[in-house]
Amino acid sequence: MFYFDPKLQYDVRVDVPDPRFARLLQQAIGGVEGELRVCLQYLFQAFGARGPARYRQMLLSTGTEEMGHIEMLATAVALNLEGAPGDLQDEAAQANPVVAAVMGGMDPRQYLSAGMAALAADANGVPFSGAHVYASGNLAADMYANVTAEATGRALACRLYELTDDPGMKDMLRFLIARDTMHQQQWLAVIEELGGQTGTLPIPNSFPVEEERREVSYDYVFTGMPGVEPPTGRFTAGPSLDGLGTFRLVPAEARGAQPNLAPPLPQAYAQAQQLPGEETIR
Amino acid sequence: MFYFDPKLQYDVRVDVPDPRFARLLQQAIGGVEGELRVCLQYLFQAFGARGPARYRQMLLSTGTEEMGHIEMLATAVALNLEGAPGDLQDEAAQANPVVAAVMGGMDPRQYLSAGMAALAADANGVPFSGAHVYASGNLAADMYANVTAEATGRALACRLYELTDDPGMKDMLRFLIARDTMHQQQWLAVIEELGGQTGTLPIPNSFPVEEERREVSYDYVFTGMPGVEPPTGRFTAGPSLDGLGTFRLVPAEARGAQPNLAPPLPQAYAQAQQLPGEETIR
Amino acid sequence: MFYFDPKLQYDVRVDVPDPRFARLLQQAIGGVEGELRVCLQYLFQAFGARGPARYRQMLLSTGTEEMGHIEMLATAVALNLEGAPGDLQDEAAQANPVVAAVMGGMDPRQYLSAGMAALAADANGVPFSGAHVYASGNLAADMYANVTAEATGRALACRLYELTDDPGMKDMLRFLIARDTMHQQQWLAVIEELGGQTGTLPIPNSFPVEEERREVSYDYVFTGMPGVEPPTGRFTAGPSLDGLGTFRLVPAEARGAQPNLAPPLPQAYAQAQQLPGEETIR
Amino acid sequence: MFYFDPKLQYDVRVDVPDPRFARLLQQAIGGVEGELRVCLQYLFQAFGARGPARYRQMLLSTGTEEMGHIEMLATAVALNLEGAPGDLQDEAAQANPVVAAVMGGMDPRQYLSAGMAALAADANGVPFSGAHVYASGNLAADMYANVTAEATGRALACRLYELTDDPGMKDMLRFLIARDTMHQQQWLAVIEELGGQTGTLPIPNSFPVEEERREVSYDYVFTGMPGVEPPTGRFTAGPSLDGLGTFRLVPAEARGAQPNLAPPLPQAYAQAQQLPGEETIR
Amino acid sequence: MFYFDPKLQYDVRVDVPDPRFARLLQQAIGGVEGELRVCLQYLFQAFGARGPARYRQMLLSTGTEEMGHIEMLATAVALNLEGAPGDLQDEAAQANPVVAAVMGGMDPRQYLSAGMAALAADANGVPFSGAHVYASGNLAADMYANVTAEATGRALACRLYELTDDPGMKDMLRFLIARDTMHQQQWLAVIEELGGQTGTLPIPNSFPVEEERREVSYDYVFTGMPGVEPPTGRFTAGPSLDGLGTFRLVPAEARGAQPNLAPPLPQAYAQAQQLPGEETIR
Amino acid sequence: MFYFDPKLQYDVRVDVPDPRFARLLQQAIGGVEGELRVCLQYLFQAFGARGPARYRQMLLSTGTEEMGHIEMLATAVALNLEGAPGDLQDEAAQANPVVAAVMGGMDPRQYLSAGMAALAADANGVPFSGAHVYASGNLAADMYANVTAEATGRALACRLYELTDDPGMKDMLRFLIARDTMHQQQWLAVIEELGGQTGTLPIPNSFPVEEERREVSYDYVFTGMPGVEPPTGRFTAGPSLDGLGTFRLVPAEARGAQPNLAPPLPQAYAQAQQLPGEETIR
Repeated sequence: MFYFDPKLQYDVRVDVPDPRFARLLQQAIGGVEGELRVCLQYLFQAFGARGPARYRQMLLSTGTEEMGHIEMLATAVALNLEGAPGDLQDEAAQANPVVAAVMGGMDPRQYLSAGMAALAADANGVPFSGAHVYASGNLAADMYANVTAEATGRALACRLYELTDDPGMKDMLRFLIARDTMHQQQWLAVIEELGGQTGTLPIPNSFPVEEERREVSYDYVFTGMPGVEPPTGRFTAGPSLDGLGTFRLVPAEARGAQPNLAPPLPQAYAQAQQLPGEETIR
Repeated sequence: MFYFDPKLQYDVRVDVPDPRFARLLQQAIGGVEGELRVCLQYLFQAFGARGPARYRQMLLSTGTEEMGHIEMLATAVALNLEGAPGDLQDEAAQANPVVAAVMGGMDPRQYLSAGMAALAADANGVPFSGAHVYASGNLAADMYANVTAEATGRALACRLYELTDDPGMKDMLRFLIARDTMHQQQWLAVIEELGGQTGTLPIPNSFPVEEERREVSYDYVFTGMPGVEPPTGRFTAGPSLDGLGTFRLVPAEARGAQPNLAPPLPQAYAQAQQLPGEETIR
Repeated sequence: MFYFDPKLQYDVRVDVPDPRFARLLQQAIGGVEGELRVCLQYLFQAFGARGPARYRQMLLSTGTEEMGHIEMLATAVALNLEGAPGDLQDEAAQANPVVAAVMGGMDPRQYLSAGMAALAADANGVPFSGAHVYASGNLAADMYANVTAEATGRALACRLYELTDDPGMKDMLRFLIARDTMHQQQWLAVIEELGGQTGTLPIPNSFPVEEERREVSYDYVFTGMPGVEPPTGRFTAGPSLDGLGTFRLVPAEARGAQPNLAPPLPQAYAQAQQLPGEETIR
Repeated sequence: MFYFDPKLQYDVRVDVPDPRFARLLQQAIGGVEGELRVCLQYLFQAFGARGPARYRQMLLSTGTEEMGHIEMLATAVALNLEGAPGDLQDEAAQANPVVAAVMGGMDPRQYLSAGMAALAADANGVPFSGAHVYASGNLAADMYANVTAEATGRALACRLYELTDDPGMKDMLRFLIARDTMHQQQWLAVIEELGGQTGTLPIPNSFPVEEERREVSYDYVFTGMPGVEPPTGRFTAGPSLDGLGTFRLVPAEARGAQPNLAPPLPQAYAQAQQLPGEETIR
Repeated sequence: MFYFDPKLQYDVRVDVPDPRFARLLQQAIGGVEGELRVCLQYLFQAFGARGPARYRQMLLSTGTEEMGHIEMLATAVALNLEGAPGDLQDEAAQANPVVAAVMGGMDPRQYLSAGMAALAADANGVPFSGAHVYASGNLAADMYANVTAEATGRALACRLYELTDDPGMKDMLRFLIARDTMHQQQWLAVIEELGGQTGTLPIPNSFPVEEERREVSYDYVFTGMPGVEPPTGRFTAGPSLDGLGTFRLVPAEARGAQPNLAPPLPQAYAQAQQLPGEETIR
Repeated sequence: MFYFDPKLQYDVRVDVPDPRFARLLQQAIGGVEGELRVCLQYLFQAFGARGPARYRQMLLSTGTEEMGHIEMLATAVALNLEGAPGDLQDEAAQANPVVAAVMGGMDPRQYLSAGMAALAADANGVPFSGAHVYASGNLAADMYANVTAEATGRALACRLYELTDDPGMKDMLRFLIARDTMHQQQWLAVIEELGGQTGTLPIPNSFPVEEERREVSYDYVFTGMPGVEPPTGRFTAGPSLDGLGTFRLVPAEARGAQPNLAPPLPQAYAQAQQLPGEETIR
């Protein structure tokens, strides 16, 4: 279960409110790279964790930290929506700063739906979706999903950093970027604990590899048209990363037949012309 | 641009049609772990590829291969929906096999909407969403996203393998599992080409690390209540994986103040009792 | 910020696992009436709270409690997915209980995507959507939204109670139903603090009522066809609940003109026949 | 504006309630082929109708009729959820028919969320989406969209007809199928009024055709690999249907160059290895 | 069933078209606080109404009225998209007002997809979702859901009122705000008819309260960290609103054990290291 | 299976990058009228094609061509996001063109999520949904769905053409508009092959028409209030288009009874007042 401290994990300060930046921050709250996603992803992985108990604890801890990041960002949104927007100080804005801000690029729903506060949505107002919560039951797959979330999350935070000159916002982002630095490596450290690439690949490593069609397990299949030069690299030659095979470069070819589906069932209510004996069309 | 061969990359054969398995296969078509996602993910990464041209080609090639996997799985769905369902051969099924199948666990929309064919949806009928297409513009982030897709994808294929006894279906899945084995390692091989963990971390590695708040970049922050034992491991001690710091175990603490939002703007139409001077309530 | 205790708020025990019940529990996790929604709803209301500080604290506290309810329900899902399903003990189930369970009504994605654990989705596998998080910036509107969530949530919990005979599950639901009893009244108590109906209606009460078209503010407009008997009740006569008017029963009538839109702009690329001078059709 | 008559357009009678059929009927309410979609599609087309006023009236009329079809189907759902399910009369069902029905293939949310009534969702519980409401501002495009909706809608109704033996339900579907027969032809009659194919094609016919690249306007481009036999038919030879050209069969070929994107902007935070001068990788 | 009058319920007049306001109006059409939602919510509640027949009639009537509000707002959108936008009269706008409007903050899909008309979507272009249609089968829960919809809907209308200076638009909003005033109280009047709080709480009041864990039914559980001051109020002391208990303030504590999930099933294809006997990792 | 040529089907050239146009182009990629939809629609129709094999081939061919159109448009997006935006050359833009572009109307996620590249989403950032992929199993229904997609798609391309002055973009759109011209007629040519309207209507034509309620199959039912003048036209008189009946104009009337639902089941947990014997309320 969970507890709260009404203080923030790190200070959130906005020197000059900017409603347009409040819109952009939404991506870090409810976007696919955002904190709602990582918070729920780590917590759901913890809630369903089977195997070494240590990982449940580790996941719970970081998921709980991320909830505090949602709080920081939502606070940042609310503060950016206060007062007259900094760089919209024209005549219209002086007359009615809310009109100016809504008409000038802020997320209109931060005003219309939330009365000047954050939404559980991304920078385009698309609501957060639970479909982005990865908790596969496979520890290695989940660790890579977490690295992905933190890598795209840190790229997002760096890009937001580029879009603001506000010292308070820049300071908050510096903190969040640093936490993403840690979290990327935290999940990769688990991969290392599990034995690195030879210890974990192919994922899941509990499926007996002799059941798969081994003769294509290390082939880089090139689907370029005849005459197109295939790329080569670490993935076309040398030992495979799981230590179990050798990469090869192989041109694509159809090994299967052309599919031949049965005619429609009567109950499927295709057109009569699709039924057998009606092929006289043309 | 693209071309097609009407033959399949690998044979798709169904010995005893099973409409319920046709439902489960939908997860591998339109689910978050499915082929529509990897196909579009690799193609969109290729379409937006900036930097070494080799990677555009590599991504185009594998994205194009995955389109053929969608075709194989959609064919498998159509074949599983043909004829009387194998293990639903009771009295009702003999009277009307369509009724039996729809009532007995198949996806009703494969019949109602598609007339016995595949949908662009997952095993619960939730439509495929383009939100799952990751193409971040950062090569390393994208490679980890691709590893994740192939790791969860291979886990899915293994689980489907467990749910069928049909020799044709098992053979097709053996092929797809093997291709996932390759694709996982293909993307990790790119990470290796880019210099491995020290060459790529933290992602993005083009953001100057001195801009982040370095003092928390390698801290495992433990948010457990006082008295709860923190987990330890590779992520709490030793050099960080990017070679730039040292992991530490640090108990969580609030460094920020309690947020203090301004009163509502009049235009936000809060309740009157939320406005200054109205705090007499209770 | 937030902290966790690895123990649960209340015991979660499953005596006889039932994978089908695990599917139904998803509604209480990721459904519109579920815990993910109330957790995020109360937290977002807290994060954006303007006005009396006491309410931020109250909302933070209950939002944090709800996070623990997600944990309890996700644990219940995981436990219901363990071992051979109780009432599926037929021949097929003995041969392969996973096959039996997936084919017999469980959510296939709890196995295919999560490896026997909970999803951030509802009982039909539809992912949780952030669109259900209400935080309007208006305290009274939010309180009613919260009452709604707890009223539909308690109805859901009662219905789930009806669908299980498992003593452990029934006990857990008894606890959750009791908490919903409290939470419904907690939010209504705030309405009482704010002065009850005369103190809060119409919501928002900060909009000057003389700006609205008062002559229709208390009319029950009846849109039944001529000859249909209108319903009467507290809403068709007597003083209005805000104390500012009198309810009336009024038959609907069109006070506005028939709309008359301009012809299409050339740039809208309507059909030529929609353009002026082309009205000779027919 | 709108009025209602509490009576139904046509009688809805269920002789033997079947909760599983109640699930299937949801597709005709909230599915992409369903009545919510056509109702809103015709009404939104009417609300935005520009050009001959007659079509606004025609669309309003049929949109209003469709609202009554939603009512009929929602009533059918509610009636199918009453009493003990007909063909689930086993021991378990006698003990608790609600348990039997929910566990036996009904939409659990019809019970859990709606207390035995219809949802605004499809047969898989996926909520209705406004994205399916087509109102393009182009009359001919809209008419084809409407034909599509009624063609897939009638196919759906025919398939539902196949899945029930209930005389009441069959009678209701006979009525709805007949209305779809009319509506398909109603929209095609408008195309005829507009001059048929030569009068309407290409859509929009208000764009000057000389602006398009006429040399490819009537080419069936065949993208099959070399050696694959192209299909021929009405679409590969003879006059085009708009009367302005001649169909041709043309093998696909790339007329464009290979795309060459600029290197990443620094602000895009790609990996350093994607930046110019870093191409030494490999 | 339903009928229409081609006239509007109330006049819709736009003095100076403003395409940006047309975007904002979308929230009142297809947003979660919008008219599509209330229209369908009241109609679905009517279609599934069980119990006193009077309420079916009342709901049908108001649902039908709301359909006319969609019509008014869609007309307002279409009129705001006509002619040259009022405050975009710069040089570019004079050259091509459509370009100016699309580039200057209007919803591009109102032009691109609808040819200058309304969409079934919100102010950010997110399509309307049927998930927002609440019809729980419980009359009291539904009444609170309706109050919520009208409270957030009236807040939205007031905020829109703030964003326009157009006399026609302001007049239309004055009418809609007044109707929301009525509808809020109409649903609360039903609560009063049902006996007020003691007559309706806890919702559902048909569940035997002795089945719930009464000892926590009136506890305000405070989850703040030790040392954080709990809020007090009407919800922490005094008789509960249902007249059945007494509110208390209780600090949160974990009454449950730490969850202990079984190891992964072999068929779940976790990593080998998650399986029993593999805990040697670390 | 599929192959690629790294060259484009047609040249994509951007003379003056415009990040705002890059946003608009998203509609043609991931919008309901866009290329992702037609690509997948034609391919899924091909994958499930039953009946004359020729149509599978035709659909595969055009679906494969459309994939190349996605590639062209995604390339156009990437090129429009390069360098300093053309008409945003003010002081701020010179200081930081990324800030200027993001703040000035581009899709922020093209930067934040994609690092200056295309998304699988529409012009409002709403992700592409597989729900728009129509493959009904009925050839005639599918052909009309395809005509609809190409008619709305061509209208979209014409509208985009209006919004750019860039010669490269205009040239690309001229090509795409021409391809849409062909594709509209290609699908209508199949209708002609199938016998035209008398050969295909009503769709599906395999359902025995004598099963439907023929007496309403050709009635234009007018739901206008008494006194409202009904529209007349080709759809109210003369032979029906399927050659099987005669159109009539018929005023709407309720033929069905008022619905009468049973009281709530106890397990549905309605309010007590909805149960029989409790009707004393009011």
